[in-house]
Parts: sequence; structure tokens; C-alpha cells
Amino acid sequence: MSALDANTCRARLDAARVGRLATVTAEGLPHVVPCCFALVGDRLYSAVDGKPKSTMALRRLDNIRANPAASLVVDHYADDWEQLWWVRADGGCSVVAAPGERRSALAALADKYRQYRLAPPLGSVLAIEIDRLRGWSFVPQEHG
Amino acid sequence: MSALDANTCRARLDAARVGRLATVTAEGLPHVVPCCFALVGDRLYSAVDGKPKSTMALRRLDNIRANPAASLVVDHYADDWEQLWWVRADGGCSVVAAPGERRSALAALADKYRQYRLAPPLGSVLAIEIDRLRGWSFVPQEHG
Repeated sequence: MSALDANTCRARLDAARVGRLATVTAEGLPHVVPCCFALVGDRLYSAVDGKPKSTMALRRLDNIRANPAASLVVDHYADDWEQLWWVRADGGCSVVAAPGERRSALAALADKYRQYRLAPPLGSVLAIEIDRLRGWSFVPQEHG
Repeated sequence: MSALDANTCRARLDAARVGRLATVTAEGLPHVVPCCFALVGDRLYSAVDGKPKSTMALRRLDNIRANPAASLVVDHYADDWEQLWWVRADGGCSVVAAPGERRSALAALADKYRQYRLAPPLGSVLAIEIDRLRGWSFVPQEHG
């Protein structure tokens, strides 16, 4: 695998419709779920399930309270492995508390996903502050 | 989201071409990578990068030595969210040591992926012993 440059990593992360978000439980176990997200500056925003008391929403919120570290990967799979690539963003995750930041996060999510335009998320919004962004592809990147 | 039954979880896991594997580093940070895998009985097998000394291969092996817990998710994303589903397998991960198990793991991987038929993996093979298999879909499953 070859490393992707920073601009390519950012562009592919921004364009991806789904990511897989890994967190760590209070017991030190890995937990991974697919999630929709939007990139704004150096932060990834993701809405937690609309029902604030659902088990899955609570689990993810418990995890980040116990351990704020998060890792989100976006990738492209094809049976032709020469087309494979992935980009991973690592950073600290927290619930967005400031109303202004929540509004801009929800606007970015609505801009990216039609469903969020039709029904704005009511639950918590998570922010991952990206500390490290790295990507790889099977075939070396062409620079032109 | 509605829960998928055990048979559906297993069939979708088996058919998926790519999973995203989350482990935890020695420092307690989440780490997630896309990976190819094959399901044999209650074990998922995955070949670590062909080059045994590559940084990525070493990182994943270091993680499971420090903390053997692994979580692998397969999912289907579509812009029509009524088609969304995912299945997650959690369990302990280890490097396959027994030659017989390694042979059957490589045979299952070769059966599923053409690339492994053309060039059998030379590096370590990981096994995840599935302790828990759960799945969800956006729309309740139909039983007919």
C-alpha cells in the first residue's frame, strides 16, 4: 500500500457517504459502527440516533465519556484490489455542547444528507477533532 | 433500527467482501482498518499484509498481543436509508499457530478471493473467535 497525500485524504474523507467509527468501551473493548458524518474544518460531526434513550445511542455516548479516543475509517472496496484505498481519521471525540457549533454541525449534515434536511436530528451530535489523518491506496498515487 | 435474526447475521457476514476490523492499541486507543476475511464455523480469518515487517502488519499484531479483543463490522450503505443494515462480530483475536488450522483458513480465503488463489498470503493469519454476532436493519425483517 502507498500513502495518500493530505489533500487527497481530506477530499476522500469529505466525499465519503459512510464511515466506520471505532471507540473503546469502559472495559477496554473495541466497538465499531457504521455512521454518517460531515467534515467541517478539522472536525467530523455525526448525529447519534434520533431516539436519545436508545441502547445504541447510550452505548456510544458511554464509550466516549469513558475514553474519548475515536478512529473513523472511510474506504473503497472493489474485487479488483488495484482500486482499493482507505483514509483514517483519529482524534478525540466529544458531545457538541455549544449551540452555535451544534447549529453549524447540523447544517453541514443536512447539506450532505437529504434525510437530515427532512428530519433534523434531535439527539446528541458528536464531534471528532482530527489529530491525525492518513490514507493509503493499493496503487501509488499519480502526481501530474 | 431492528435486530436481524442469527441466520441472517451469519449469511450476511459470510457473503460480505470486506469488513472493518477494530482493535485497541496498548495505549487504549481504537484502531480500525478495512480487511478481507473468510468465515469458517465460528471463526473469522484474515491474512495480515504479505510483507511480515510492514508497519501496518506489525501495528495490528502488536495491538492484539496487548489486547486480544476485536470487533468486525460489515454493512450495506445506500442513500436510501431504508436499505441500510449492518452486522457486527465481536470476539477474541489471535494469530493462527497450528499448521492445520492455517491451511484451512488459507483455503477458505482462497475460495473467497481470487487474489489469494493467485498468491497465497505469506504473513500471519488472524482468527477471531466470534463470541457475539448481532445485526440491525433500518426496516424490520420480513419473515415469510
